Amino acid sequence: MIRVGIYGGTGYMGGEALRLVLEHPEAEVAWVTSRGERDLSRAHPNLFDCDVELIDPEDITPCDVAFVAAPTGVAMDVAGRLLDIGCRVIDLGADFRLRDRSVWERVYGRAHRRWDLAEGAVYGIPELHREAIATARVVANPGCFSSAAILGLAPLVARGAVDLARVSVVGMSGTAGMGAEQARPSHHPEIANNLVAYNVVDHRHSYEMEQELGAVAGGDVPVHFTPVYAPISRGILNVCNAFPTGPVSREELLDLYRGYYGGEAFVRVHDAEPGPDDGAWQYRPYPWVNAVSGTNYCLVGLDVDTRRNRIVVFSVLDSMGKGGAHVGVQNMNIMFGLDERTGLRRAGMHPY
Amino acid sequence: MIRVGIYGGTGYMGGEALRLVLEHPEAEVAWVTSRGERDLSRAHPNLFDCDVELIDPEDITPCDVAFVAAPTGVAMDVAGRLLDIGCRVIDLGADFRLRDRSVWERVYGRAHRRWDLAEGAVYGIPELHREAIATARVVANPGCFSSAAILGLAPLVARGAVDLARVSVVGMSGTAGMGAEQARPSHHPEIANNLVAYNVVDHRHSYEMEQELGAVAGGDVPVHFTPVYAPISRGILNVCNAFPTGPVSREELLDLYRGYYGGEAFVRVHDAEPGPDDGAWQYRPYPWVNAVSGTNYCLVGLDVDTRRNRIVVFSVLDSMGKGGAHVGVQNMNIMFGLDERTGLRRAGMHPY
Amino acid sequence: MIRVGIYGGTGYMGGEALRLVLEHPEAEVAWVTSRGERDLSRAHPNLFDCDVELIDPEDITPCDVAFVAAPTGVAMDVAGRLLDIGCRVIDLGADFRLRDRSVWERVYGRAHRRWDLAEGAVYGIPELHREAIATARVVANPGCFSSAAILGLAPLVARGAVDLARVSVVGMSGTAGMGAEQARPSHHPEIANNLVAYNVVDHRHSYEMEQELGAVAGGDVPVHFTPVYAPISRGILNVCNAFPTGPVSREELLDLYRGYYGGEAFVRVHDAEPGPDDGAWQYRPYPWVNAVSGTNYCLVGLDVDTRRNRIVVFSVLDSMGKGGAHVGVQNMNIMFGLDERTGLRRAGMHPY
Amino acid sequence: MIRVGIYGGTGYMGGEALRLVLEHPEAEVAWVTSRGERDLSRAHPNLFDCDVELIDPEDITPCDVAFVAAPTGVAMDVAGRLLDIGCRVIDLGADFRLRDRSVWERVYGRAHRRWDLAEGAVYGIPELHREAIATARVVANPGCFSSAAILGLAPLVARGAVDLARVSVVGMSGTAGMGAEQARPSHHPEIANNLVAYNVVDHRHSYEMEQELGAVAGGDVPVHFTPVYAPISRGILNVCNAFPTGPVSREELLDLYRGYYGGEAFVRVHDAEPGPDDGAWQYRPYPWVNAVSGTNYCLVGLDVDTRRNRIVVFSVLDSMGKGGAHVGVQNMNIMFGLDERTGLRRAGMHPY
Repeated sequence: MIRVGIYGGTGYMGGEALRLVLEHPEAEVAWVTSRGERDLSRAHPNLFDCDVELIDPEDITPCDVAFVAAPTGVAMDVAGRLLDIGCRVIDLGADFRLRDRSVWERVYGRAHRRWDLAEGAVYGIPELHREAIATARVVANPGCFSSAAILGLAPLVARGAVDLARVSVVGMSGTAGMGAEQARPSHHPEIANNLVAYNVVDHRHSYEMEQELGAVAGGDVPVHFTPVYAPISRGILNVCNAFPTGPVSREELLDLYRGYYGGEAFVRVHDAEPGPDDGAWQYRPYPWVNAVSGTNYCLVGLDVDTRRNRIVVFSVLDSMGKGGAHVGVQNMNIMFGLDERTGLRRAGMHPY
Repeated sequence: MIRVGIYGGTGYMGGEALRLVLEHPEAEVAWVTSRGERDLSRAHPNLFDCDVELIDPEDITPCDVAFVAAPTGVAMDVAGRLLDIGCRVIDLGADFRLRDRSVWERVYGRAHRRWDLAEGAVYGIPELHREAIATARVVANPGCFSSAAILGLAPLVARGAVDLARVSVVGMSGTAGMGAEQARPSHHPEIANNLVAYNVVDHRHSYEMEQELGAVAGGDVPVHFTPVYAPISRGILNVCNAFPTGPVSREELLDLYRGYYGGEAFVRVHDAEPGPDDGAWQYRPYPWVNAVSGTNYCLVGLDVDTRRNRIVVFSVLDSMGKGGAHVGVQNMNIMFGLDERTGLRRAGMHPY
Repeated sequence: MIRVGIYGGTGYMGGEALRLVLEHPEAEVAWVTSRGERDLSRAHPNLFDCDVELIDPEDITPCDVAFVAAPTGVAMDVAGRLLDIGCRVIDLGADFRLRDRSVWERVYGRAHRRWDLAEGAVYGIPELHREAIATARVVANPGCFSSAAILGLAPLVARGAVDLARVSVVGMSGTAGMGAEQARPSHHPEIANNLVAYNVVDHRHSYEMEQELGAVAGGDVPVHFTPVYAPISRGILNVCNAFPTGPVSREELLDLYRGYYGGEAFVRVHDAEPGPDDGAWQYRPYPWVNAVSGTNYCLVGLDVDTRRNRIVVFSVLDSMGKGGAHVGVQNMNIMFGLDERTGLRRAGMHPY
Repeated sequence: MIRVGIYGGTGYMGGEALRLVLEHPEAEVAWVTSRGERDLSRAHPNLFDCDVELIDPEDITPCDVAFVAAPTGVAMDVAGRLLDIGCRVIDLGADFRLRDRSVWERVYGRAHRRWDLAEGAVYGIPELHREAIATARVVANPGCFSSAAILGLAPLVARGAVDLARVSVVGMSGTAGMGAEQARPSHHPEIANNLVAYNVVDHRHSYEMEQELGAVAGGDVPVHFTPVYAPISRGILNVCNAFPTGPVSREELLDLYRGYYGGEAFVRVHDAEPGPDDGAWQYRPYPWVNAVSGTNYCLVGLDVDTRRNRIVVFSVLDSMGKGGAHVGVQNMNIMFGLDERTGLRRAGMHPY
């Protein structure tokens, strides 16, 4: 059994990691920390049927691996402490995601005290970095929008058949992505019938997308990213537009994507065709975000406008799932030599 | 392995039963029927990662047990066919729930062609009928509002310390309870900012509540039931009012409920106290419906107005969960001698 | 033109009052206060097309009438100041609603410094207190749940044909009723798929209901009230159960209600019958909350369970409308001798 | 008084037109048609307080102007009939929006029987075609996504400082845009926690955008448009990406937009700056869709990514408002020489 610590168990991401570990057949909870809360079911009303105690962050003990769900700038120190006592680290936050220190310090607005750890960390998208994750001491779990954009665009960028300077992404996210801390745009009367664009030209996740897609492309790939909050709780839909440099068909691209993700358990190409009675409402050719809410799946779909020469790619995932704690568990499975799917075989719900 | 058929796999309840069987460690899918659909993931976008074929209802074959998710009046014939070929039956519909034929025929507006089966069926609330379920050939899975009301009120009614003629229930349900068939009150623009009362004085589920609570009380218990649709997808909150015949305290009643459901895995008494910083907003003493969405749990909470002499009981469950397909799987586990919790240990999600 | 002040213009209720005054043909804005905000459209994104300045509360000047939207306990002092400079007062809060000082001080948990003003205040339900409102110096605008319950039950209580000790109300409210201040139950990820019962046996609004219905009945009428938050923004649905002392029919009660509210512009009896194609889904006989959202209307519907001997009454209104700022404007119209409907003739929206 | 007919009064768009006419100080209802319904408040629960009769479409009589809310292909015949009896026509549908017959016949999949009328029709965006609207016999009210895109992009396209071949639009719409007819993607359990992309590369509205923006540019402007349904009822947010051909700043573009729409009552440039306490959550610089729901306003905001050289433009409106019946009334006001704002001065609501 893998003994797992959860550093910061009362936020959404820490709570989700905890739920997954509790239901994981090869892992067990070593400890869960909270600064002030001692009643787990007050923090997470769903976790009434387990007897996990919340401990003070000072009281952590050695274990095999710890998920860190701490604020930006805090996690870097925590990770150091954890490594010192022999725990490998899966950071669910942003402290170790970027390779360029000056970029990190600028976009997060502070100095990085443990750049040595950032340099050694592995960016936690298994489909791109599986081997390095297996032996990593620190895994930097990716941002939610980043995961969706990178998984959605990697095959296209790898082939290089689009104008790499003109790739744009409009990301729609549920409010779980804002975390447990209350803010005006998550106040129900404000968001219930609203759509809220924010940080629209230089979102921090842009730099993760550019770093990873640039590595795939072997060159610069600026990502023109704009996020929008929508009144759902979980889930992200990224709509990515790219302009092909030559003729291409939907079927060719679906082949490309199916090939690229052929062996992957959790990235699936959604290539449904409309049914006989779908009429003008051709919904099902494109993935639905609620189909993967609560799961570790990313569904990718696409289409081509041959009339105007444009490719549109859709990727959907749960920001707490394949974009958060679930992919963290997938990374844990890889780090400890388990079947990647262990503890992650849940299907989504219908209806969700 | 229990071999399980799903008769009617494209509706919500059949799809949920299918999902549970697919993830059940001791059960496997024998067949799933649909009249017209052959593409499972068109019916259930969440079930893209399984290779279940949909077959014609005419092509069913013997198996150990079948979940029937067919329209009222159809299931009675299907159940006969299934029993004939040796399948035990768990009917997710209403054909076998009532013990009084004249009541059934009146409230469902048709003749019952297989009252022999109805007479032999067991009402599928394990907490009340566990032993009979174990040997039943036909289990009548309870209605969703009924489950919530019966589980919420049984301890109170059993003690008999309330005015049994004045028990009222206001039930709020998500729209999953309407099923997959479209109707005006489930059209998103109509319901998104709405609350819709319907069938407000003689809902069919009233008769299940009265039958089961009457049996618990050993006498008549009219249930004054009013349902309301609310714009959530899954989940039911029942608010039950009763008037005590003598002085009673919240703590006494919590003791009563804890005693009544002491050994139960899936009915839990929500007896949280407000925390030190809860101020006037005492939310957490009462159960939240999203804490059990997607699960087989029913949470029951309560309070007493000692000033005005009233008891209020809250019960929450998922109409597809403890009020539907999940309790169906609990019943299946009982029928086949398994640990009741097998395949049902999911916690809810936070946030949901 | 009536010159109107808004004391506390950045909360939801003050903002709604401001919007109504801006669109009122016989009123104009004298001033609007805020302690910290100077940009109205930051507080109220809908009010971008008006040039109202926000002033400091210290800088108010004489005007004809002021709406006070201040925290409990603050309003009593503000009202004194306003009266001193010659403004009549419509208090949108709770400081002047109760006639019993000891009850007020207990349920609001503080001493009342201006009970002289409370004694002179008129409870602002025009259908009950129209004449007194006309000459009032201070109008205590009613609570939202209170308005719905009082308007829904007054005809029934007046007739006295029900068991007055057993009247219960389950109230469902949108989150606008929580106000602009963020709290956990209004955090979108927590409430989006949830139903949250709170203050379930001794809600402050119970005392308003009991005070007003008691006056209608000429005797004590305990109201067994339980509120629930639902994930809509505006609107309240009250489901009221009462037990008749003798035989009664829906049609008789509809007559009673139509008679009671016959001349009223804003309380309407919803007596629709199901249409020919409504089948089992008899939704439309009962009022929908979204039909009156954004308006000053209260719709009241009802039904009778002749089989079990119960009356159920539904009342719907907008907590900011007939349960808040709109009825405040109706009161203002009465106070200044205008047609009550002035500035309040908006219909709701469909869809809302 | 303008006498107004509503041809097709039971759908969402016809109902909204009716509501506006009922509250319009210079217009009155001549007639409202429905094929099957005779009870207006069954169709529109908000319109319980008016005594409009629904008549058969065969029974229409001469009036000054008629709003036509009929299915595609039907409206062209209706418009002919109306013109014959002397009514001017504002078509709320798509029959007269396109100038290219072959395009219309291809994208709407049928022959056009009254191309003569289409040729004479004026596309109903007042900001572009005010003079022609004033004298038009037939106004083709614009599509909802089209309005938002055209108003959002016209100033940018007019200046010509962006790559006109690479303009993309991701449009998010509430479900009111699907109309009153039920369909699976509007079934509440399917959409409540979902985001649904559809018709993603060749939506019919693309051709309106291209027609109108092409006219503004004086050349071809392909619009790469992808629509997504989100679980709100009313409102559209368009996110438009364009790539500038040279350096440009947010402030320059805001100036451009303020100049372009300087005299317009209903198109407003949202140029708010973040406040002192907005921190990293810079929400308010971009327009919120709920601020204009229920109104005739379109808010346009924008930003520039100087690092990556991209312009993003946001436009929000209500698909039934500035994208539907409200702009229809604005067009009516222009056609009859009234102040354009007559009957349209409503602010939005907060909260909505």
